[in-house]
Amino acid sequence: MLATPVLQARGDARGSPIAAVVLTGAEVDQTAGLLSLRERQAFTIFATAETHRALAENPIFQVLAADVVTRKTIAPGERFLLPGGVGAELFRVPGKVALYLEGENPTTDAETGANVGVELDYGAKRIAYVPGAAAVTAPMRERLARADVVFFDGTLFHDDEMIASGTGGKTGRRMGHMPLDGEDGTLAALGRLPGRRVLTHINNTNPVLIEGSAERRQAEAAGFEIAEDGMEIVL
Amino acid sequence: MLATPVLQARGDARGSPIAAVVLTGAEVDQTAGLLSLRERQAFTIFATAETHRALAENPIFQVLAADVVTRKTIAPGERFLLPGGVGAELFRVPGKVALYLEGENPTTDAETGANVGVELDYGAKRIAYVPGAAAVTAPMRERLARADVVFFDGTLFHDDEMIASGTGGKTGRRMGHMPLDGEDGTLAALGRLPGRRVLTHINNTNPVLIEGSAERRQAEAAGFEIAEDGMEIVL
Repeated sequence: MLATPVLQARGDARGSPIAAVVLTGAEVDQTAGLLSLRERQAFTIFATAETHRALAENPIFQVLAADVVTRKTIAPGERFLLPGGVGAELFRVPGKVALYLEGENPTTDAETGANVGVELDYGAKRIAYVPGAAAVTAPMRERLARADVVFFDGTLFHDDEMIASGTGGKTGRRMGHMPLDGEDGTLAALGRLPGRRVLTHINNTNPVLIEGSAERRQAEAAGFEIAEDGMEIVL
Repeated sequence: MLATPVLQARGDARGSPIAAVVLTGAEVDQTAGLLSLRERQAFTIFATAETHRALAENPIFQVLAADVVTRKTIAPGERFLLPGGVGAELFRVPGKVALYLEGENPTTDAETGANVGVELDYGAKRIAYVPGAAAVTAPMRERLARADVVFFDGTLFHDDEMIASGTGGKTGRRMGHMPLDGEDGTLAALGRLPGRRVLTHINNTNPVLIEGSAERRQAEAAGFEIAEDGMEIVL
């Protein structure tokens, strides 16, 4: 969930500076925050048809009153404008449907509208935001290469990290997340991009969270930063 | 949502001291927190059939894996045991179904399993927790009178407070919440109970939140306390 503020103070008791929310998928990480924005704050949700369908199938999201909160369906590749004049475009990223929509054997690297990234532009500046990716395709890499800043999926360092630590039974790839490490990992795939690269959506088992760890040094040596709460980026 | 801890430290990376959750309804206030307890933490959800049905109708709650999170249906009036040996009983409270389940003209003071209170007992001590109430019935009053501490719906002070402040179009009663003020308000209804009375579920328009306000003094003079974050009650 990417919330974009309007450049305007709201002083009333129920005011919110959030004018738009862009969803890159229907996973709990992306959508549960919507339930804190209710009940009658006007804003627009931009998302693909797949993500809007997942919301519609959950009556609880009806707390976002239809006459107040607008739901706009955006096709991947279609540029749209956010309040404040920021341009945006969604793009397909190999990945998985949300956990609660999985069948028996979900495809974990499908390129559909269920899992997308978002590219923001304002003047000549560009930001790409990709919180979940099973792989980096050639068109994705081209898009990321033109961004001044890329926020990218940093879920796990090692694909089997959760199994090894006893915190889960799934590999990162099973969850639709490529690991940072390895020949086909994120550090290798995005190591030579020209812009800043910031790892986000980091799982609490990932040793890049530990300052001074070997893995943190490896990520930093490859040119990656680690996102943190309250981080500010000036372009 | 009332989360009850086990008396045991959990030191692992995904540990949680929460062994049970008791839901008094399916409103977002009660249920959205469940989405922060995922994904594979073992605990039990105790709730009425009505509340469990509302959860089941929202696929997003399937993130609480069925083989890990147990959902137990409890009928109002049936005593059950929480982990740690605390006794509990749900009881019907006049109120409303969750906002997202409302039809055109919802009944706002129905006594069904959709809106309940919970009474906890441990040894000779009793706590009652009623975050939403449209009225205090005679059986409810009897039950509340035997509690050492009552946590009670403090949503609005004046029934038309949200309309008057421009924050909403509904009265408290339309939302299934009796006001604190007035002849049939909460201060009058529970003014003579022997135990401690703590107002909870307080809306941000309610002037009892302001220390020193006339309404705060009125509530305090009637013997009520105002709940706050981190509040601890010793029995």
